[in-house]
This record gives sequence, structure tokens and C-alpha cells, in this order.
Amino acid sequence: MTDCDGAGAQTPLQLYESLTAQGDQVRVLKTAKADKGEIESAVQLLLKLKLEYKQATGQDYKAGCPPPENLTVPDNAPAAEGATNEDEVNPWSVTTNNAKGVDYDKLILRFGSSKIDKELVDRIEKVSGQKPHRFLRRGIFFSHRDMHQVLDSYEKHKSFYLYTGRGPSSEAMHMGHLIPFIFTKWLQDVFDIPLVVQLTDDEKYLWKDLSVDECHRFAVENAKDIIACGFDVNKTFIFSDLDYMGSSPQFYRNVVKIQKHVTFNQVKGIFGFTDSDCIGKISFPAIQAAPSFSNSFPHIFGDRKDIQCLIPCAIDQDPYFRMTRDVAPRIGYPKPALLHSTFFPALQGAQTKMSASDANSSIFLTDTPKQIKNKINKHAFSGGQDTVEEHRQLGGNAEVDVSFMYLTFFLEDDEQLEKIRQDYTSGALLTGELKKLLVETLQPMIATHQERRKQVTEELVKQFMTPRPLHFNF
Amino acid sequence: MTDCDGAGAQTPLQLYESLTAQGDQVRVLKTAKADKGEIESAVQLLLKLKLEYKQATGQDYKAGCPPPENLTVPDNAPAAEGATNEDEVNPWSVTTNNAKGVDYDKLILRFGSSKIDKELVDRIEKVSGQKPHRFLRRGIFFSHRDMHQVLDSYEKHKSFYLYTGRGPSSEAMHMGHLIPFIFTKWLQDVFDIPLVVQLTDDEKYLWKDLSVDECHRFAVENAKDIIACGFDVNKTFIFSDLDYMGSSPQFYRNVVKIQKHVTFNQVKGIFGFTDSDCIGKISFPAIQAAPSFSNSFPHIFGDRKDIQCLIPCAIDQDPYFRMTRDVAPRIGYPKPALLHSTFFPALQGAQTKMSASDANSSIFLTDTPKQIKNKINKHAFSGGQDTVEEHRQLGGNAEVDVSFMYLTFFLEDDEQLEKIRQDYTSGALLTGELKKLLVETLQPMIATHQERRKQVTEELVKQFMTPRPLHFNF
Repeated sequence: MTDCDGAGAQTPLQLYESLTAQGDQVRVLKTAKADKGEIESAVQLLLKLKLEYKQATGQDYKAGCPPPENLTVPDNAPAAEGATNEDEVNPWSVTTNNAKGVDYDKLILRFGSSKIDKELVDRIEKVSGQKPHRFLRRGIFFSHRDMHQVLDSYEKHKSFYLYTGRGPSSEAMHMGHLIPFIFTKWLQDVFDIPLVVQLTDDEKYLWKDLSVDECHRFAVENAKDIIACGFDVNKTFIFSDLDYMGSSPQFYRNVVKIQKHVTFNQVKGIFGFTDSDCIGKISFPAIQAAPSFSNSFPHIFGDRKDIQCLIPCAIDQDPYFRMTRDVAPRIGYPKPALLHSTFFPALQGAQTKMSASDANSSIFLTDTPKQIKNKINKHAFSGGQDTVEEHRQLGGNAEVDVSFMYLTFFLEDDEQLEKIRQDYTSGALLTGELKKLLVETLQPMIATHQERRKQVTEELVKQFMTPRPLHFNF
Repeated sequence: MTDCDGAGAQTPLQLYESLTAQGDQVRVLKTAKADKGEIESAVQLLLKLKLEYKQATGQDYKAGCPPPENLTVPDNAPAAEGATNEDEVNPWSVTTNNAKGVDYDKLILRFGSSKIDKELVDRIEKVSGQKPHRFLRRGIFFSHRDMHQVLDSYEKHKSFYLYTGRGPSSEAMHMGHLIPFIFTKWLQDVFDIPLVVQLTDDEKYLWKDLSVDECHRFAVENAKDIIACGFDVNKTFIFSDLDYMGSSPQFYRNVVKIQKHVTFNQVKGIFGFTDSDCIGKISFPAIQAAPSFSNSFPHIFGDRKDIQCLIPCAIDQDPYFRMTRDVAPRIGYPKPALLHSTFFPALQGAQTKMSASDANSSIFLTDTPKQIKNKINKHAFSGGQDTVEEHRQLGGNAEVDVSFMYLTFFLEDDEQLEKIRQDYTSGALLTGELKKLLVETLQPMIATHQERRKQVTEELVKQFMTPRPLHFNF
């Protein structure tokens, strides 16, 4: 049930010995003042071994104290409980040891947000007059900040606007990247409100080994995929930071205002920056914060600074907006509200999210029907049993089955989804059959996306990305 | 030549950085009330590092003042001995204990710049075909970086451009603020080259208790005084950061490029920033650096990034440009050259520079003839004797006399100035008479400035501050 690669079969004692050796290795490299990257990867391996050791033995590695002989690790023991506390969730990394994925209830406690409960979902239905999106019905958007306040105001005919974004680190977008956009499109449709989409090409330049021009090109390419989600050009402004920062004095003023009210100590605490980080990274959070304030977009909102912002995003982006909400009242702006989604799992399992940098973990928006089928059949982690016989007898585990998880995201029909879950759990539905259902759901969905993307002309992209009034009166 | 133990191969800069880090460590331990022995040994290491630093560089370690580029250490380093080490010179503070002012020769050593010697002044005269400006003849611009290289290129018909600036912290500019502009105007005239003037209203917002709008208004008001110095609108672009950052994607791209190549450790070392500083301050140095690169101004230079920049400024701004010169080759741009001026002394004496925040220390560009006269008579520190009789007998000390210093800045006639010096030193000229000469020099000069400033229309300011092509072909 734990992780899977190479070293899997080691006994506790072997792990202990590997760990001791690796610890020595790190010391040697540090003493020799070896190349930073080399030390870094040795340390990473050390940490990974420590984690494995704890999983295997239920206790922390301690130099000089080999594991007891005849160690037995209790099957579902407190060890596993402890492991969940180590879910790592931040804008740059999401990992957990739990095959069901991150423990989102604990994350709500840790981040201090609120659960999207049935009452809130019902209220969204009532206020919008629309059946809630499947992402709401199924807890994929599971956490929020101040959503009730947004609805209170909306009921009093006070409008709000949507802000979401993407870090364009490559041309290739995968299915996971669509989640916030699919949901944001639904919100825009049911509430009829403006949307701003930030492409943080500056961030990608600062964090990755890419040129400014590459990052900007990725931003424009990604904009095409976003537009293909069906946004209304009359209601949507998409911008690259590298362009917009240099096109809007009002945006820059807000960036500077935020930068004046956040110290290095604070970003160190929130994002884990160190003294060796470049000053661009250190000040970047203000740039992701600025679109949360309506007067950053004078072409849309004039000089109004009181229009509330609602940010649909994956929960790993929350640290930026915790910071933003902290600063907002101090510079005279309303705090943005948030709707947080869970992560879209990698094909290999929910221990980590789908990542564009690992081709085998992802189904890309450019994949052919055949590639989609092959990837799912080959890589999608299965909660099924080893043999058909066992599966019929014991049933599969839908909670850890990646194909089933994906269907939760994309199969619209609630009853059909529930039937699949029951059949898979009972053993009536085999893994191969489940995968076939997923393939048949994704192939047309992605084909449609590709068709729509083809229709997105350079002219249309330019239109979306030009600062201009939208079809609203503020 | 340097020290011996394990880390022997450290460069002065590495030593400097170790020292800064160790200093922080000691502070952390003390604040945390750590174990006494632990503090003791951290302090011992700090002292050891300070010793090594002095051996390696010939000078005392001083927080916020990294060792100069291209440091050469005099063999037996008596230079290191020095009360002058207490001169504090950085962008936010200038003080010395010496009534003659900062020891500029030592500053050249400390900053690693080069002296503007007679050979360079002669060469400027030869290349420009003009009598050198009195600021050059009299050592007021006393230090440079790469000025010979600028002249080499100019002789080969390769042009360059000028960049200078001002932090608009109030409406009130004083005479000291004019020094870089008077000299820059002369450089523009004799070399016939473009000039960009940065008004760092964003910086003032970050550092002072002022609103964004106030800082921007000060920038526009200060621009009027700058324009009144006589700059040619066809050759000069004046910009507020708050405006231009939001008007030029190319400028922002350069800012981000610089921000990617400077770490917090570096700005901590150069500017003395701490973890409690806001992230705006920490990243600001990149914004002052960016105008050093020609492609920050596409409306003037197109996409050319190879046009050398020459920066006339007071020496306290050098830390920004040491950083800039360090980054330049790593992002594929030429290093800017510099011409450094001394400080314009406060009325009370050369221990500190004239400061707009202390009205009695300054003669403002808005002062009436009567105010000028009163301020000089009342506040200008005198190098004269206590009584007329003693003065006639012993003579005055021109070296510490502020009135004489001001005449050095503003009286054009070399012979007349020398005669005043001799007469004052011999006692033939009394303090009252010297002050009268200064009053008669300043009153018409400032009246003329006020007259010119009145002619500066809002329309003309707008013209200077609009990004547009200048009358040059690049």
C-alpha cells in the first residue's frame, strides 16, 4: 500500500543500513563543499529513506539504534495515522502517503478554512437557481472562505467577480489543469459575472530554468486551452503578468501596496523561502495577490475598489490568498473569498497530483484517443484484485482506484456513477471494464476540447488578452 | 597573502558573507537567550572571521558594506588603520566625524571604484572638445567606474546614454539635489546623447509614511524642477516608476530578470536589509537597476540591449550599481559606467549632507532672496575666527567653511574662487564678506531657477514624461 519504486522490498534492517550509509554520504558531500545540487539530491534521498523506514518500522530512524529483531508493524496502526500528518501541501509540492489522497478534513483544520457542507451547496443552488455543479455535489470543491458573505451580497444585488489562474510552465496542459477552469466557467455562467485569469509567466521564469520569452509563449499557448473551455470573451480578461504588469499602472500600484505590507519574515513563514532565494521569488506573492482587488483592473471596474473577488483554485494555492486576506484590510480593500478544490490525482495514485513534468502521470489535452486508452490501461492505479476470481469474490476498492476517481471528476450522471461504484465494490465490475468506461468518457471529452482549441484563432487570443471594458457596468 | 586555515581559499566577498551570516547567528542566539557557552563560541568564531577579513582586505568589516570589486590589498595595509572607517555612506544615510566631510579617497578604496584623476579630466576635455565642467575641475565628481571604456567607444563613434534619478520624498527640492542634474545636463550638451531620469516614487512609498498618490505627486512636482535645469525635451525622458513600470512590458521584463539573479543574502549584504523588512524594499534594488539597460526603453532604443549606460550620481547610490554591474553580464547586458559626486554639505557643516527633512540644513529651490540671505548668515558653518582681530591675524579655514564649499560648487570663475580661498585663509576676507559673496552667487541662481520653473507648463511635464522616441536613431 505504500510506495512502489525500486527499493520496495527492503527489510527494516536493510533500510537502516542504507540510511546510515546515506547519512554518511551527505556528511561527506557537505564537508567536501560539493556541488549544491548534488548535496540537495543526496539529502532528498536521505529524507525519502527516513520516510520509508518509518513506514516499515513505525518508528523514527535514530543513528546508532538499529531496528529491533522480529519487528512487526501493526497493519493499520498509529503509524499510518501519523503518516497522514505529513501530507505536504504547498504551491510547489503536494504529496501524501495515503492512497486515498490528501486528508482534506485535516487540511481544512490546518489552513483554517471552512468545509463546503450540504447547507452551502443547497444555498448556492437556491441563490443561483441552478443545479449545483458535479464538483460541488461530489466534494471536489470541498473548502471555502467567506462564500456565505459573497452569497449574502449577491442576494442584495451586489455583484462580485471571479479570479483564477495558471502558472504556464510548459505548452502541455493536462486534464488536472482544467478543473478550476471548468468550475469557473460554470460559476461565470450561473452568476453572470466578470472573470480575470492570471497567467503567472513571471513566476515560472523565476522558478524554472526557462527564458522570459519561453514563459511568455507558454502563457499564450495555455490561454488557448483556457479559452477552449468555453469562456465568453465579453466577460473574460486573460492576462500574462509579463504583459499586464507593464500595461497597467493601477495593477503595479496594488502590487507595491501589498509589497509594503508583507515582510520577509512573513513570506518565509508562509512559503518557506530562505535567504538564498532570489528577491524575485520573495516579492512574487504580491503579484499573485494583486488580482484579488478590483481596482487592479480599471478597464473593467473603473476605480471601484469595493467589488468582492471570489477565487476558485486548488487548495495548494491557499497560502497566497491567506497572505492576501491578511493584507487586504490594511490597505483598505475587501478580502477575497475562496473556493478550494482537491487535487487531480496522478495516474499512479492519489499520493500525488497529476504533474505535467511527468508524462506518464498525466493525460494531456493533446493526447490522441489511442494514447489516452494506453495510458489508462497501463498506468492508472487500480483498486482491483490481482485475479478476476479474487475480484469477483472480494470486490475492488473504489476509494483508491484512480479510474474511478477520474470518473468522479468527469462523469456527469450521479446515478450512473453510484452504480459503477457499487458494481466495482461488489466485484460485478472488473478493473478492465471500469477502465473502458473511463476511456469512453475521456476520449470524446478531450476530442471536443481539441476541436474547440483548433477554433481558437490568434486574433481571438489577442482579444481575450487585451485590457478592455467587459460587458458589465461598474 | 591571506590566511591559512581550512577555508583558506575564500574570497573577500565570501568572507564578508560568512561574517554577515555569523553576525546574524550571534544575534539569533542572544535573542533566544541561548546557552552561554554556545553564544561565547559563536562570538569567538565571529571575531576570528573579522580578523581574517581584515587580513584579507586591509579594512575592517562593516555590516552593509561588502568588499569592493577587484579589491587589491596594499601589502602592509596601513590604509586599514582609520578613524575614517566610521564614515557611514549608504543610500539612506551619510555621516562622518570629519568637518572636512567624508574621506573620499578611502571611499574609493572601500567601494573599489577609480579616482577621476587629471588624466581622465584631460581626456574628457579632448574627446568632448569642451572645457571640463567645474564639478570635474574641482573634484566634485571624483570617482568613476569604466569611464575610459565609455570614452574609448565614443571615440569609435559608438554612442551611450545617460541615466540619473531622484527619490521624490517631498515637493521641496534643495540645492544639493541639483548637483547630479546640473552635471548631467552638461554631459548631455557636450556629448549630445539621450538621457533617462528615474523618479523612484515607488521607493519613497515603500520607505516613507506616505501614500502612493502623494509620492506620485511629488514625482511630478520634482520633474518640474528637473526640467527647469534646462534639459532638451527632444533628448530626455523623465519617468515615475509608478507610471512607467505599468507602461512598459520591456522594463518589467528587465526588472524580473534582475530579480532572478540577486538573492536575499546579497541585498542583505549590500543594503543591510533584515528579515523584518517588507518584500517591497527587498526587491526594489532591481527597479533602480533596470534603467541601466538600454532595452528597458524600447521607445528610445528599439530592441537594442548593447548601448552602454553612464550614470552620474552621488556616491551613496553606488551600492545599487555595484549590484547592477554584478548582474549585468549574467543576463547578457553591458555593465553601466558611473561618475560619482561628493555630497552637498548641510549648512551646519560637512559632517552630513544637505537634507530636505531638516529645513535649517537646507537652502530650498523655493527660498526667497531674503530667506537665502538669512539662512546663510545664521546657519552656514564658518571656518573663521571668533573675532575680527583674530581672523585678521590667524586667517580662516576654507576647508571646513560651508560658505566656501558652496562657492566651490557654484562659482564658475576658477581664478576668482582661488583668490577668495587665499584671502579667506590669509584673513584678508572676513566671514561676513565671504557669506555676502555666497549670497550674491546663490540669489540670482535660484531666482533664475524659479523663473525657469514657472515656465514649465503641465503640458511640457507631460511631454517629458511620455514614453516616446527621442531625436536619435538607434
